[in-house]
Amino acid sequence: MNTIELIRKKRNKEILTKEEIFFLIDNYTKGKIPDYQFSAFLMAVYFNGMSKTETTALTEAMLYSGKVLNLNSIPGAKVDKHSTGGVGDKTSLILAPIVAAAGVKVPMISGRGLGHSGGTLDKLESIPGFRTNLSLSEYKKALKKVGAVLIGQTKEIAPADKTIYALRDVTATVESIPLITGSIMSKKLAEGIDGLVLDIKTGNGAFMQKTEDAISLADSLIQTSKSFNKKVIGFVTDMNQPLGNYIGNWFEVYESIQVLRDGKKNDLTELSLILSGAMIYLGKKSNSLEEGIEIAIKILSSGKAFDKFFDIVKAQNGNTDFIINPEKYPKAKFIEHIKSGNNGYLSYVNTYEIGMAAIDLGAGRKTKEDKIDPKSGIIFNYKIGDKVNKGVVIAELHSDSKSGIDEAKKRIIRPVKLTKSKPQKLKLIKTIIN
Amino acid sequence: MNTIELIRKKRNKEILTKEEIFFLIDNYTKGKIPDYQFSAFLMAVYFNGMSKTETTALTEAMLYSGKVLNLNSIPGAKVDKHSTGGVGDKTSLILAPIVAAAGVKVPMISGRGLGHSGGTLDKLESIPGFRTNLSLSEYKKALKKVGAVLIGQTKEIAPADKTIYALRDVTATVESIPLITGSIMSKKLAEGIDGLVLDIKTGNGAFMQKTEDAISLADSLIQTSKSFNKKVIGFVTDMNQPLGNYIGNWFEVYESIQVLRDGKKNDLTELSLILSGAMIYLGKKSNSLEEGIEIAIKILSSGKAFDKFFDIVKAQNGNTDFIINPEKYPKAKFIEHIKSGNNGYLSYVNTYEIGMAAIDLGAGRKTKEDKIDPKSGIIFNYKIGDKVNKGVVIAELHSDSKSGIDEAKKRIIRPVKLTKSKPQKLKLIKTIIN
Repeated sequence: MNTIELIRKKRNKEILTKEEIFFLIDNYTKGKIPDYQFSAFLMAVYFNGMSKTETTALTEAMLYSGKVLNLNSIPGAKVDKHSTGGVGDKTSLILAPIVAAAGVKVPMISGRGLGHSGGTLDKLESIPGFRTNLSLSEYKKALKKVGAVLIGQTKEIAPADKTIYALRDVTATVESIPLITGSIMSKKLAEGIDGLVLDIKTGNGAFMQKTEDAISLADSLIQTSKSFNKKVIGFVTDMNQPLGNYIGNWFEVYESIQVLRDGKKNDLTELSLILSGAMIYLGKKSNSLEEGIEIAIKILSSGKAFDKFFDIVKAQNGNTDFIINPEKYPKAKFIEHIKSGNNGYLSYVNTYEIGMAAIDLGAGRKTKEDKIDPKSGIIFNYKIGDKVNKGVVIAELHSDSKSGIDEAKKRIIRPVKLTKSKPQKLKLIKTIIN
Repeated sequence: MNTIELIRKKRNKEILTKEEIFFLIDNYTKGKIPDYQFSAFLMAVYFNGMSKTETTALTEAMLYSGKVLNLNSIPGAKVDKHSTGGVGDKTSLILAPIVAAAGVKVPMISGRGLGHSGGTLDKLESIPGFRTNLSLSEYKKALKKVGAVLIGQTKEIAPADKTIYALRDVTATVESIPLITGSIMSKKLAEGIDGLVLDIKTGNGAFMQKTEDAISLADSLIQTSKSFNKKVIGFVTDMNQPLGNYIGNWFEVYESIQVLRDGKKNDLTELSLILSGAMIYLGKKSNSLEEGIEIAIKILSSGKAFDKFFDIVKAQNGNTDFIINPEKYPKAKFIEHIKSGNNGYLSYVNTYEIGMAAIDLGAGRKTKEDKIDPKSGIIFNYKIGDKVNKGVVIAELHSDSKSGIDEAKKRIIRPVKLTKSKPQKLKLIKTIIN
């Protein structure tokens, strides 16, 4: 096989065979195909897409570039959730303990913050001592004992994805549905799961801003999951405002504790319960999605989910004092209150700018070398449709950096709009696909 | 400026500014933009094309990557011809002496064989001693003295093209009209010409197989020439059969001598006269294209063009004995006659395969390292529409390599079709654009 001919074939919109896709991925991963040919191939895929069969072959080639875990020694169904990322999205921290408490195993390999969106690993690491770098044998042990485990990407899992992603990032080829599908699914399938719940975000705080793009991605992920005989349910959910009220790493753990222990009810609670219900259903602990959600609600109100969260933190070496007494967590040096200058209804939030403001405050990285300040972030007090009176605090900015506060302030004032007439509340779940 | 953002801009079909295009070409040529980003950019250009303004900026950036010759010290108009390449296309060897004899200077920087098509430099170098590697000062001197000079690409001329072409060749991004335009025009404009005649080939032996693609390329080349205030005429010409009867390096010099000295008349003669006429007209030695062609016909029949050809060969150190006595040129070891198995009219020739068969015989390179055998090639005796009787020799294959003959034979038998009814002769000039 000849790399130039394969690039030309994809460029000419022909369908590549499984063998041809394996040839490209294997040889690129082994360094036998140079970056400059692979980036031309990626751009051709960006323009001409891939068929279902091609996307499955791509995923398979990326999956088998590394180790595929076998969790058969651990009894029960294993179900994971994947979100495409947004602002304030901390559902993993809430649903993992709920679903594990329902008797479904939750083996989660998560990522770090990307662009304006936060990452589960960064959030968990705000708990002092919490280890996200468990070895694969520690990972299995924790999963067996606690029922849920949350770790980071290891070198053994889908190494092709790491190499390809680094190239996509610098060649403007990130936004491609088959490439995103291969990247997500190769890592998730390597976990050894039986089922997967997908949360595809859409809106001004999501990577897929248009709902039709989010639905296309959901379709591609679902088709690919099915090709590998995995059970799957996909939710296309709204990301036109932060999920919950807290953005920032410890802030998001703190809000998760509010939901798990204190019965806080908001859009975050609602979405976490729906996704938990879907995972419980895929894990065969309920006969329907609705019944799964009912089980999730009961577990949450019983306090069992909070106990399970405590166990997860303990099993992964996290300091549980802060879970019991979150108010003891260190505070940021500077706190700035953003007050409303008018009366009105909150009608629009530029969620992307809120996410970027949180990074200005220290909650994310601008370069790979940046260190995160776990106690920095934003408390955003209102939801679209809420009445906002003149003078009330719309948002609190927390940071150890005065210049970070100044930058975040500049970003956050413009992207919020008030109107005289009351806008409709946003629909959280846009569509369910399975 | 940020390379990723510029790739994304082109990928999203936005128009790049002149400054952005210069940034990309300058930095790529200087090695500051890596191959893997530039190849992604090239593929985005392949898909989304370039506007006239972008193509002009691309050409200008490539042109000024090197030296731009100033031929003002040489009196008279300087006019060149560019052909997009085909099989048996040796018009340069005939028109350069005709036009120079008419008093128009012909400064030609030519190329080598590419794919199935031959190259003027390889043809000239079949004349023992002929130097195509003149320095720029020798080039000027020869042009001044003889009125025509034919040399190869020098390192000083448009070095960006060499670097970019090498990358296009291995990333399936050759077939792009703006990229082809930048490549051709940056080199031609560097010659210091006043006018340019374009011969854009279309058909099964051309790079642009479809006439509409050839017309698009002609339009792009003409628009770009005009942006640089160059006079230009473009001809879209047929390449559905070899031009003339001889294919191969010395063979093509030999057929040129037949036209220049012996009055041979065929499609090659016709096209050479038309292109010569256009060059004479652009060089202001006639008041119309038609008058230019009349002048060319007179010069050819007077013998002055052959004398000029002799002078060119002499000035560039070629052995003129073979020009006077071409029959003394060494012969290939093996000569194979391909005979017709049927009676009929020649109705189809797969010209690409004829070109590839000539390479099998030794007339071109399969890898960069291959040496050309100048005496190898094909004599193809018939034109589409000719009556072919059973048993006559359709083609002669000449080579020093027995295996080359065998490979060429396999290629050449299938691509020729005879029919019972007489097909129409092919129209040589499809359209004239200026």
